Amino acid sequence: MIKIYDIETLEEREILFRGGSGADVSAPVAEILRAVQERGDAALREYTLRFDGAAPDALVVTAEEVDQAAAQVEPAFLAVLEEAAEHIRAYHARQKRESFVMTEREGVVLGQRIIPLARVGIYVPGGTAAYPSTVLMNAIPARIAGVGEIIMVTPPGRDGAVNPHILAAAKIAGVTRIYKVGGAQAVAALAYGTGTIPQVDKIVGPGNAYVAEAKRQVFGRVNIDMIAGPSEVLVLADGRSNPAWVAADLLSQAEHDRMAAAVLVTDSRPLAEAVAHELERQLAALPRAEIARASLEANGKLIVCRDLREGIAVANRIAPEHLELCVDNPFDYLGEIQNAGSVFLGRYNPEPMGDYFAGPNHTLPTMGTARFYSPLSVDDFVKKSQFSYYTRDALARDYRKVSLFARKEGLDAHARAVDIRFEGGEA
Amino acid sequence: MIKIYDIETLEEREILFRGGSGADVSAPVAEILRAVQERGDAALREYTLRFDGAAPDALVVTAEEVDQAAAQVEPAFLAVLEEAAEHIRAYHARQKRESFVMTEREGVVLGQRIIPLARVGIYVPGGTAAYPSTVLMNAIPARIAGVGEIIMVTPPGRDGAVNPHILAAAKIAGVTRIYKVGGAQAVAALAYGTGTIPQVDKIVGPGNAYVAEAKRQVFGRVNIDMIAGPSEVLVLADGRSNPAWVAADLLSQAEHDRMAAAVLVTDSRPLAEAVAHELERQLAALPRAEIARASLEANGKLIVCRDLREGIAVANRIAPEHLELCVDNPFDYLGEIQNAGSVFLGRYNPEPMGDYFAGPNHTLPTMGTARFYSPLSVDDFVKKSQFSYYTRDALARDYRKVSLFARKEGLDAHARAVDIRFEGGEA
Repeated sequence: MIKIYDIETLEEREILFRGGSGADVSAPVAEILRAVQERGDAALREYTLRFDGAAPDALVVTAEEVDQAAAQVEPAFLAVLEEAAEHIRAYHARQKRESFVMTEREGVVLGQRIIPLARVGIYVPGGTAAYPSTVLMNAIPARIAGVGEIIMVTPPGRDGAVNPHILAAAKIAGVTRIYKVGGAQAVAALAYGTGTIPQVDKIVGPGNAYVAEAKRQVFGRVNIDMIAGPSEVLVLADGRSNPAWVAADLLSQAEHDRMAAAVLVTDSRPLAEAVAHELERQLAALPRAEIARASLEANGKLIVCRDLREGIAVANRIAPEHLELCVDNPFDYLGEIQNAGSVFLGRYNPEPMGDYFAGPNHTLPTMGTARFYSPLSVDDFVKKSQFSYYTRDALARDYRKVSLFARKEGLDAHARAVDIRFEGGEA
Repeated sequence: MIKIYDIETLEEREILFRGGSGADVSAPVAEILRAVQERGDAALREYTLRFDGAAPDALVVTAEEVDQAAAQVEPAFLAVLEEAAEHIRAYHARQKRESFVMTEREGVVLGQRIIPLARVGIYVPGGTAAYPSTVLMNAIPARIAGVGEIIMVTPPGRDGAVNPHILAAAKIAGVTRIYKVGGAQAVAALAYGTGTIPQVDKIVGPGNAYVAEAKRQVFGRVNIDMIAGPSEVLVLADGRSNPAWVAADLLSQAEHDRMAAAVLVTDSRPLAEAVAHELERQLAALPRAEIARASLEANGKLIVCRDLREGIAVANRIAPEHLELCVDNPFDYLGEIQNAGSVFLGRYNPEPMGDYFAGPNHTLPTMGTARFYSPLSVDDFVKKSQFSYYTRDALARDYRKVSLFARKEGLDAHARAVDIRFEGGEA
């Protein structure tokens, strides 16, 4: 089912292979965006009936609905949600940055302010992919950044209600307001605003092909987080690794969806063979076996390298979303990992620890973009604004230099703007 | 020529108005990208001959060419370039971030590493828009970030040579290598790599419509900085302002190009009237008068507000690239400015100070995107990578919580990956 490759026999193209993307939905999405822009809430109600089969009384979720939902959640799970939120908060609080000011040059004040975004939208999928962890991972960094209003959108079920776990997580994370709307129409509402839903500055969160395409189309009018590709894990494991654990880790990625990619890189052919065997054995007992099998067949690989250094080099070329280092002394290799969204060090740190609980974010760069993209963080919910100030004396000292520079670039009006302040006449 | 408006008479749409964008060049750009992807350097040579009328011996600029160019530059200007670079370096050095590690929870190590991009490309326009300030403002932050290789591309003149000011600035800024190629073909070379030009992780820098469209099309394969719109200034000035200075500041923006936007917001109708008069007077003496006049006619506005607080509110709605506060005690208002790329405080701090010399960056968010985008900074040349580590004891303490969370999300293989480590059998 899953193949074992010697690294020497793999072409670069095969090493870097990722599953293709889905169907082109740009035309139907453009149509939905246009309808919401023109007809606002009425269009939202129509699409919610058509796509979700629901006709909720109101788009907004009331505080009572949220409290009732939270009361429904099993107390043990509520406690886990709260502890997870605490860990996510502690980690992301370390990302918070300070504004700075510089006064070293006489008469010159320079600085950079960190300003929270005024309003952000968080998309949370519904149905079988309604994940409370999504709410925590997106809303908590926004909250720590100091965002003014955190608007959550999520599709209702056929009964017009939202998954109670989602609402409980929203309450814990500090979401400002929640609307029962999903799909491209929800993205449109956040980008343009409607009578009910306010326009936001940035839209984050995962979604299906329609949601992703809608985010792509409204990008520029509002900001968006990255367009996420299928989830990926690369497990780098030495010959002392337990093949059952490695197989379980690969399957935890493969069960996400058919496009997910799970790759083992090891310096041990016997481990690769044992993992292949374990994958078959464990698949038999998995509820989502069909998805996991399809993913492994299409995108799974077990790659045998000469040594772990070569394995690290392969990992850096693939630039995986998740990278597990199942080796002795994993910190020995940390400094050599150049390209990976999140690195899981050690044999007792499977990737799901990061999906839910450890504290770092689970929204990570996919499709090799860890070469240049970063995990979702507090930085995604702020902007920077520069400032500068010159006294008259400071400008008098420097203006001729600026005037010369401007004239060398052929921009005389730029030169004039500084010169004119010293041609007689005061403010 | 330029109109005076009372704020009450302006609709929101008129306040937020920006000039439209140019012609659609997506098809010819796609053709160029394909040609470079397929035929590499040969395609670069053909397009350079066709678009730049040049057939340079080699694409790469030699160290000797750079040294000769630097030696040609007027010493007074070289000194200004060096001082400007020093100020830009000092400011951007303050943006540099540290990796962090957290060890507060027993047996758990979490962290975030800041990793410089391996290789970035900087596009520098040629011809009459060949600005050495562009080189400094893009290359210095990359250098401070610790980028491995900084690759500059810029179109040659008909003689096959590159503007000596550009080369001198590249030497000062610490550019690694320079290639004589411009336009969409240069962007393609940086995105795909050719026999001569290496593929990069991110492409930054301004350019014409072809360059902007090429960046848009390769986005995803590599990262890019923002797609810059026409340059903008909003001057917020009180009635004590010198109208000649204000007019000079507006003109310094308007001379950039016909699409540039220069807007005055003031609480003084007499100032607005005096500025209108001054604009006409000063235009007469400007070399680029035709461009500046076209810009003012199409996109210029003089807006009269009731008071400065209202003016600040207007500025926040417009979210200008550059905002001048020509008032007494400008720091009184700094905390109220929510949306602006760069704020110029005081009567002795015209916007060209920031284009060249003060230290903050001159690549700024346009078209109202200061609501959610930031100036170019050291952050644009690094990525973040998360890491985590659990001891066996720490995982033993926490794994049941993670297992519960995963099962609540219907992801059994996620639960299995943590459970299996405590079902007997060691690593």
